[in-house]
Amino acid sequence: MALLFLSTPERAAVWKQVFDAAGEEIIIGAEAVTDRAAITHILCWTPPQDLSIYPNLKVVICAGAGVDHLPPMPKGVQLSRTIAPGIEEMVRDWVVMSTLMLHRDMPAYIDQGTRGEWQAHSTKLARTRRVGIMGTGRIGQLVAGSLQSLGFQVSGYSRSGRPVAGLEVFDAARRDAFLARSDILIGLLPLTGETRAMMDGAFFGQLPQGAHIVHAGRGAQLVLDDLRTALQAGQVKSAMLDVTDPEPLPPDHWAWRDPRVMITPHVGSYTDHAEGARHALAVIEATRTGAPVPGVVDPVKGY
Amino acid sequence: MALLFLSTPERAAVWKQVFDAAGEEIIIGAEAVTDRAAITHILCWTPPQDLSIYPNLKVVICAGAGVDHLPPMPKGVQLSRTIAPGIEEMVRDWVVMSTLMLHRDMPAYIDQGTRGEWQAHSTKLARTRRVGIMGTGRIGQLVAGSLQSLGFQVSGYSRSGRPVAGLEVFDAARRDAFLARSDILIGLLPLTGETRAMMDGAFFGQLPQGAHIVHAGRGAQLVLDDLRTALQAGQVKSAMLDVTDPEPLPPDHWAWRDPRVMITPHVGSYTDHAEGARHALAVIEATRTGAPVPGVVDPVKGY
Repeated sequence: MALLFLSTPERAAVWKQVFDAAGEEIIIGAEAVTDRAAITHILCWTPPQDLSIYPNLKVVICAGAGVDHLPPMPKGVQLSRTIAPGIEEMVRDWVVMSTLMLHRDMPAYIDQGTRGEWQAHSTKLARTRRVGIMGTGRIGQLVAGSLQSLGFQVSGYSRSGRPVAGLEVFDAARRDAFLARSDILIGLLPLTGETRAMMDGAFFGQLPQGAHIVHAGRGAQLVLDDLRTALQAGQVKSAMLDVTDPEPLPPDHWAWRDPRVMITPHVGSYTDHAEGARHALAVIEATRTGAPVPGVVDPVKGY
Repeated sequence: MALLFLSTPERAAVWKQVFDAAGEEIIIGAEAVTDRAAITHILCWTPPQDLSIYPNLKVVICAGAGVDHLPPMPKGVQLSRTIAPGIEEMVRDWVVMSTLMLHRDMPAYIDQGTRGEWQAHSTKLARTRRVGIMGTGRIGQLVAGSLQSLGFQVSGYSRSGRPVAGLEVFDAARRDAFLARSDILIGLLPLTGETRAMMDGAFFGQLPQGAHIVHAGRGAQLVLDDLRTALQAGQVKSAMLDVTDPEPLPPDHWAWRDPRVMITPHVGSYTDHAEGARHALAVIEATRTGAPVPGVVDPVKGY
């Protein structure tokens, strides 16, 4: 078994150390491959166009948690997304920060700051805010726990409504009720045919008047022009976006200049190199023993 | 026993409801007092100049948690600061938000946003950051718990070093060691003779290079001009301030225009009116039964 590494030199240096220490083979760059039949795993962000040149390829490992940019895998090749603990904690931190920032009116205070205005607004207690988390996977559950411990009234949403201990989860049939009780709406769903352009004018209209949006899913899920209309109508009060459509957001885009919108450049998670390498080792070990591959992506569901 | 209420009409309406429901007497405004001898408690932000006109006064209740703006009480009169659970939770939320904002480079992202710049910086895991909390009272302990649950390496500091379960607390003799390990320094101490102007150039110089400051204590504890020098030298990387000296900060102050400094206008806590009224009822009950007065201020320590 050997892993073909197709990513940055900075990352490669860390991976080589981790692989050497574990006694696993890693080949840095396609040009270093002497025997294509030896390649069983590929680490990449975007895979090479023709994977069929590696006849014994078992698993493509995506360096990130989101895999919607990847083409379907050839028959017999599994796709694994990197689900290092570090990634989930980083997204959790970003989401908790962003929820608190909207809860505590930071967009208004930052805007006032540009004019040197010292003007307090009344503050709500966290326990009076209803937060709705769309996506109750590992990250959604981490976020829910942290926000509950801060006192927020937290509910979750997933298509299936699969139960989560300590959290009320709404399913697709009760989506309207979920949106109607989400003073702060957090987007954490994967990008699929169903979730593409899901956060549109009709969606915003189902939230309570003056709702807040925290979006760390995928840019293509949120229709920015509809968000603008909802902001202008006061239906949405403020938004924190870590993902946009397109990315990067062009410098002259209206969202940069709207004080009610705060943007970070897709930095919710950042894979710690060593964590990523350890995920790949776990995938290789699973391939060897026939155990389920960590982070494996269901090709039908798309996540 | 009767409470003389000296605060805003908006607050008075809520207090009257709570007092009426509890069967306690509340008099709204000094002009409504017909029998000064009946007044045993006064609720105020700043007390009337001559308290001796109320011969049976037992406790002055300050509407907020900070009492450094109050003169010494006459002999026989105790001072209580409002320590409603809502206040502590609000400050905790602000501090956790601010810590995450500096941890996740929000000052840089907000500054980039003004130019429409989509540029990611590498992100650290919370577990790699050492956070130092100056002040390990009720709010400091709440903050410590929340930041620990997010994975931060948290230590505390108090003059006495009084132990707190689950938290390493440094005392005054080990202040240097505490500062030297505080990548993010959180100010939550009361304003006293000792803490006035404590956060100065020498103080900043004891922090690790590139440290971050979260300040929710009192403005007079932090020397803004020294902070500016430390920012320019790279000794301090960024700061979130909820308190400044003076307050309000003048519109033309340099700190408003420095992208490394973010300011909120003393909104860390905001006393929910009903919570404040319930604190006052607890004080009255304690006076009646001779129990220790909730939130009582030690006239020597000043908090």
